[in-house]
Parts: sequence; structure tokens; C-alpha cells
Amino acid sequence: MIQMILLSVTCLLILSGEVYGAPKKRKTYSELKSCDLGNLAEEIASYDTVVKDIIDYAVTGPFKGKTYNELAKFVDKFGPRPSGSQVLEDSIDYMIELTREEDIKDIITEEVKVPHWSRGEEKLTMLEPRVKDIALLGLGMSVSTPPDGITAEVIVIRNFTELENIGENNIKGKIVLYDPVFITYGKTVAYRSQGASKAAAKGAIASLVRSIAPFSINSPHTGMQTYEKNVTKIPTAAITLEDADLIRRIITRGEKVVLKLEMTSSYDDKVSRNTIIDLKGRERSDSLVIVSGHIDSWDVGQGAMDDGGGLFISWAVPVILQRLSLRPKRTVRTIFWTAEEVGLVGAYAYEKQHRNESNNINFIMESDEGTFAPLGLAVGGNQEARCIIAEILKLFQSINASTLIEEDSPGSDITVITSKGVPGASLYNDNSEYFWFHHTEGDTMNVEDEQELDQGTAFWTAVAYIIADISVDIPR
Amino acid sequence: MIQMILLSVTCLLILSGEVYGAPKKRKTYSELKSCDLGNLAEEIASYDTVVKDIIDYAVTGPFKGKTYNELAKFVDKFGPRPSGSQVLEDSIDYMIELTREEDIKDIITEEVKVPHWSRGEEKLTMLEPRVKDIALLGLGMSVSTPPDGITAEVIVIRNFTELENIGENNIKGKIVLYDPVFITYGKTVAYRSQGASKAAAKGAIASLVRSIAPFSINSPHTGMQTYEKNVTKIPTAAITLEDADLIRRIITRGEKVVLKLEMTSSYDDKVSRNTIIDLKGRERSDSLVIVSGHIDSWDVGQGAMDDGGGLFISWAVPVILQRLSLRPKRTVRTIFWTAEEVGLVGAYAYEKQHRNESNNINFIMESDEGTFAPLGLAVGGNQEARCIIAEILKLFQSINASTLIEEDSPGSDITVITSKGVPGASLYNDNSEYFWFHHTEGDTMNVEDEQELDQGTAFWTAVAYIIADISVDIPR
Repeated sequence: MIQMILLSVTCLLILSGEVYGAPKKRKTYSELKSCDLGNLAEEIASYDTVVKDIIDYAVTGPFKGKTYNELAKFVDKFGPRPSGSQVLEDSIDYMIELTREEDIKDIITEEVKVPHWSRGEEKLTMLEPRVKDIALLGLGMSVSTPPDGITAEVIVIRNFTELENIGENNIKGKIVLYDPVFITYGKTVAYRSQGASKAAAKGAIASLVRSIAPFSINSPHTGMQTYEKNVTKIPTAAITLEDADLIRRIITRGEKVVLKLEMTSSYDDKVSRNTIIDLKGRERSDSLVIVSGHIDSWDVGQGAMDDGGGLFISWAVPVILQRLSLRPKRTVRTIFWTAEEVGLVGAYAYEKQHRNESNNINFIMESDEGTFAPLGLAVGGNQEARCIIAEILKLFQSINASTLIEEDSPGSDITVITSKGVPGASLYNDNSEYFWFHHTEGDTMNVEDEQELDQGTAFWTAVAYIIADISVDIPR
Repeated sequence: MIQMILLSVTCLLILSGEVYGAPKKRKTYSELKSCDLGNLAEEIASYDTVVKDIIDYAVTGPFKGKTYNELAKFVDKFGPRPSGSQVLEDSIDYMIELTREEDIKDIITEEVKVPHWSRGEEKLTMLEPRVKDIALLGLGMSVSTPPDGITAEVIVIRNFTELENIGENNIKGKIVLYDPVFITYGKTVAYRSQGASKAAAKGAIASLVRSIAPFSINSPHTGMQTYEKNVTKIPTAAITLEDADLIRRIITRGEKVVLKLEMTSSYDDKVSRNTIIDLKGRERSDSLVIVSGHIDSWDVGQGAMDDGGGLFISWAVPVILQRLSLRPKRTVRTIFWTAEEVGLVGAYAYEKQHRNESNNINFIMESDEGTFAPLGLAVGGNQEARCIIAEILKLFQSINASTLIEEDSPGSDITVITSKGVPGASLYNDNSEYFWFHHTEGDTMNVEDEQELDQGTAFWTAVAYIIADISVDIPR
């Protein structure tokens, strides 16, 4: 903080519009902000050699292709890793063993009680005006239908205002289909997460939602939804853009659509684990720079993109630093969050358990919006914090990853911690097609690119190293 | 033909590279070809007013949106229309009625014996190294598996040369997975159409093929395959790019992959119909200009793109000419081919039945590679024929549809007729994403664009009108 006053070098916060499809609201800045870093700018610039070494090691050197290949081995071996499943626990054990093989010893896990919602049989059939199978994915925590299913007429709702204004007689006993226009994920996802209870409150007996996505090859997208208290829990599922459009067109022509929905699911609580890997700092080991991703996934696809990529670039940070004998002043901590998909459960547990140590987190980073070509960081924190990070990002021009965008609430899991005033950042990457695959059977290795993962690994490692090693703490 | 000698205007055949993903080999020309059309060029240029009238009528006038809306009503009502199904026959009746409502009287159908292959239950499960459901679509004419399915180890084959060179002991009793690199559809589809028999000849007990597509969201692509005589008929299906890659990666790591394939299907012969709609010529009604698309589809998706779009722009030709009281010298004939997907069955029947009239076909056109933004025509025929068509295409610069590409064998159904020396063309359109959706559940109205369909309708109608009305026949 004191250094701030002495500084003279200009640091630019780079402008950015709202990122297409980004899951979080981002602020758009229409003017440059300037800040003085003085001698700190020179200190940061002096890391250019180590940045180059790390990029060389990960992108063209011995680590080239390693992130992709380890990720592929992992997701091919385990497939999807839903919260509460045995396969998730097995995959956690595997990651611990993989890390130990790198001669990294400081690995602990912390137990977390997690929900275990398990999909059973799911079938949706259009009965009128003609018989047609409709692809679906039940939403997280959905209850089952009765054994004979639910057969009812559909009413199409474009937005919650329309729902509020419609007479209960028009909804009672029907299946509500939410058919919102996709704007961004953040602006549209409420129809998935809140739709069932809002429909039930008006008397609907089941609800469907147009998948929260801008593009589809008849691909349903699952995801979490939450039942409100004191409202009947009705079965709820996502259907494809194609079938939502089909049903809306038929009804718009004045015909009645009748659907039969059959779903089963089960629910219980299980114990899972957050995984914590420390590369102890050489001077201030109590001060933490955290890099993280979540190890659980939805129960479709391979969870390669969401969030296998974030998991593995965060795994690579201590591995590369260890291999290059780079030991920063502060401790670099990697966290593999558990049970993110069902409500940031691992992150909440970590925050609670470590609350009294929270001042020890100097900076926290998360990658959970894809690991496509890295472009920079989405940074939360005060202006001085952003100035320092922007100065660090200048060192990544060679891989085109120097952009800082200002984000009040970066990431997903880490919002639990940044909301307490801890500065942090999420990976800003070229993820314009992220929501084509998100929470679908298409979230597989085919979405991942070896070279982009190498760049992400290099970027993530070098940024964490510099923040953990510079003379100043990140101001808050 | 005589006019050719008198001509002086230069006509350019526009250059074109190979179209990405195009189903047919196209010739690429590295130099401009010139040809003299003389007075005919002036005559063709005089159609500029009628071209403008037709474009105005279809793109901004009373027909605006009509092609899209009629196509949507049609595919929403019937869904997929496989060869031999009752729904295909019902959809043919519907199209006849829709045409009659336009006060077009000259409509006949011609019966055709068609194959009726019907998909039953299909399930593919990876048993080793872990249990995983694998999305699949059985290929056309595939036999069923035994009731208990086929459980066997997989061998991955990249190309037919590899298959030929491999010892029979390595294949016998196994499931062959063809995993070819997608180059173009035309260059890769042999692995789908011939793979089963080639694998069976080496002792395989079932075969799978990586879907013939450049992009996927876990989307299997079905399609026709043909069993060779004197080779055991083995069950065969397509799997997704993602699962083909998964299986190859696992095997490359030295692990064994065991799959269980369960498929049922049935087969019989049925009678279907080609539909022929004539707008009789005012002077030479025995000379035909044919526009066409096929009305059958695969049994997945809606068959909106393949070939609902081609069907409806061909339907629109006589409708618009009738509405605008444009009656050309020659007869404009619209044909809705039946049973294209199972081997051009309707086209072969038509060619046989009308063989002795074949000189009456002045020019034949087909749209079966998408109805995205029209770019021009892919033209088969001699140099003089191409010169005339290229001159006509100059009239479509306002909608950017003036490109002629030279194609020895344009279209799919019409190759049956152009191979006899009849000049013809297929719609050349902006279809770079065509094979993302082709033969999948994603072939729905969501692929179609209202404005592009309007442009396609205008283009198709005006081109057919001019060719049917100009003073010269298309030379052959």
C-alpha cells in the first residue's frame, strides 16, 4: 500500500466489453484508468526472464502437451464425476497420487458433506399433435415423476413477467415450458435455476426449460436448480433449443401440445473432499496465493471443459514450479474444489473452515470458464490491486494474454471468498463457444486444444509465481 | 448451338476452389475460360426486369417468409419421412394438396417400389475398461444383432489400406471401428457405405464408423450402407467423433476396449411415389426444365435441411410463376423425388420410365446440399452450356448468387439423368456447416434461415424461368 504512493509508471487497465456468453456480469470501462506503481513496475518487469522460462518449459519444452495428455488420461479413465459419487472420490485419490509422483508432499484433503443427486431413467414423449421422442436432461435435485409419468398439456412462457401476469387457470395442471431468449448465461440461467418453483407456485405440475445455450445439435444442457421452501417440488428438466422451438411453433399455430414426462432420481448425502496442495513459500509461508478449479462435474460428457481444464492447469502450477526449482516467497496453494456444480459446496466448506485465517489469502485464482487460449485475467479487488495485476499481465504479450478485465465477482467457487474482501481473479480466455458444450454430453476432450492448454498452464503458473514472489502484498 | 458461332460477348466461368465439406468432387479452374454468346447475351440481359420482379416478390414482397413458414409447417407436422413409411406417403399427399391450393392442376405421381428399412432398439455400451453408454445410430439396411447382442473387443482402423494389410487373426471375432480423418464428405463416406462388408470379409463380427462429419456435440450421423454380395452381413452403426476419439485414445494407451452392441431393425418393400408438377410451356411444352428436391429423409431430426429446403424452393418455382402469370416457352417441371436416401431409388425409377423422352429434358436442376444463402450453380454440361448459364447468373449479382462452379456430376438424384448427357446443375450455396447436421437429430428448422430461404426461392425460380424461356436450348 505504501509503495503505491511512490509509484510513477502508468499502468493501464485494458478495456473490455461484455464477454459473449460469459457466466458472470462484467463491468465495461469506457475510459482508461491510470495508476502509479513506481519502483514496483521495475520489480515486476524483472520477472520477464522467469516468465519466458516458464512459457518455454510449458509450451515448447518438456511440459509441452502434458496438460492435455494428463487431462485426457484422467477424464478417459473416470468419465463424469458427479458430487457424491464413488467415481469422484476415486478421481480425487488419483489426483493426489499423480501429484505425489511429482515429489510434492504437502497434500491434504478436508472432508465436506455433499449432496448426491443421482439421475435415473428419463423419457419425454410428445403425444399430441403427433408422437415424437424429445431429448431431455433432468435438472439437478429434480424429484421423480409418479411411476406412470406426468401427461399434460404444455404452456409456453417466454419470461417471468409473462408468468406473473398469466391467470392461474391457464397454468394449473399443465407443464410449463420456459422458452427464454438466450442473452448471456448469467442473464438467462434463472429460468433453469428458479423455474420449477415459480411454475409450481402457479399450479404447474412439471416444468421444462429451453437449454441455456446459444447453439445446439439437439443437445440438452443439464444444471442445478433449487426448490424454494413451502412450494410443491415438481419434476423439472431441460430440453433442446430445437424441441423448444418446435413446441412453441406448434402452439403458436393454435394446436395443443401434450407431453408425457417420466423421470426417476434419487438423493442422499455423502462425504467428499476438497484437496489442498501446498508449495510452501520460502519466506512467508503463511501468506497464500491460491490457484484452483473444481474436480466434480455434471453426470454427462467427461467434464473435460467444466472443469477438467481448470483442474489441470491448477495442478500444473506447483508441478512446474517444483520441476523448475522456483520457490516463491509466499506459499502457492492449489485447491481442487469438490461439489461445485451442486452449489459451491466445497468452497463454502473451505471458507468456513479457514475463516479465521482469511487474512492469509493474499490472492485467489480460479479457472472455471474454459481453458481455451488465455487472454488475461478477470480481476476483482480495489484499484491498486488491479494496477499491480495489470502490470504483471504486461509480461504475457508473447502469448497474447495481457488483458485485464474488471470483474466485481470473478469466478464461481472463489466468489465465496472474494465476497469477504479477498482480491482474486478468474482466467479470462477465448471461450465464445463455451456454452455450446456446457453441461452436455459434448463436454469431452474434443473441446480441448493441446496448445491452448499449454499456454493456459504457462500463464497460470507464471502469474501465480509472480504474485507469490513480489515484494508487496496485493492490496485490499 | 448455331448462335454460339455468332457471339462476341465474353462470358466468364467464375473460379472456385473445392467447397469445404462438399459431397461431390468439384473441378477447380486455375484460369478463366472465355466464350462468345453474341446476341444471346443481350437477350439474357433483357431478363433483368423479370429477375428483379421475382426477387422482389420472394424476398420483400408477398412471398417473403413463405418458404420458411411452409417448410416449418410441413416438417413440424410430419417430422422425419423415411423411405417406405406411411408418414412419407402422407407428406406426399400433403404436398399435392398444398400445390393444388395454388390452382396448379398438372400434378401426377408415379409409383416406385422402395426399400423400407426400419430402425428398432439400439444400444451400445462400453464394458471395458469402464462401463459407459455410447451414442449410436445404426446405418441404413443394417441387420440386427442376435437378441443377446454382440460383445467383443474393438480394433481401430484408420483407413482401408490399414485394413487390407492387417492379419485376419487381428480382426476375426472383433468389432472394427473405422476412425478415418474427415477430409470431405465425398472423400470419407466410403467408410460408412462400404465399411461393414470390408470388415466382414476379414472376419469382423460387427463394424462401427466415426460419424462422417467435421464437428459434433456428441452427435451420431446415420446414412446408407450397402452389403456386398457373398459377404456375411454384419450389424453396423455410426458413433460420435467424441467416442471414436475416446476409444482410439484408450487403445493407443495399451488398454483393451470391449463393447456390447444391441441393434434391431426390420426390412420390407413398399410402394412410394415420385411427384411431378408441370407448369406447361406456352410454346414448347414438350421441352422440360426440371427443378427438384427429395421429399424422403432419414428417420432422425426433421429432414428440414436434407432435403426439406430443396423440396420447398422447388415447390415454390411453379407457385411463384403461376402467381406472377409468368408462363415461359418451355414447361417447368417440379419433381419431388422419393427414396433418395436409400439409393436414389425414385430418380432411377423416373429415368427408366421416361428414358425414351430423355431428349425432352432441356436442363435439370436439383437442390440437395442445403438451402443456405444461394451463391450460384454447380453446372454439369459442355462448355457452351456453362457459358449460357454463367451469363444468366450475372443477373443475380444483387443477391450475390452469380458464381458458376464447374461440376462434372452435380446433385445426387439428378446424376442418374445427367450421366446420360443431359445438362444440369445443383444449387451452390453457403453450406460450410451442412455436415454438422447432416443425417442427425439436429437436422431441424433451427438450421434454416428465413431470409436465405427467400433468396434461394427467388434464385431457383428466376433461373428456371429464364432457361425455360430463352430462345436457345441448352447445348449438349
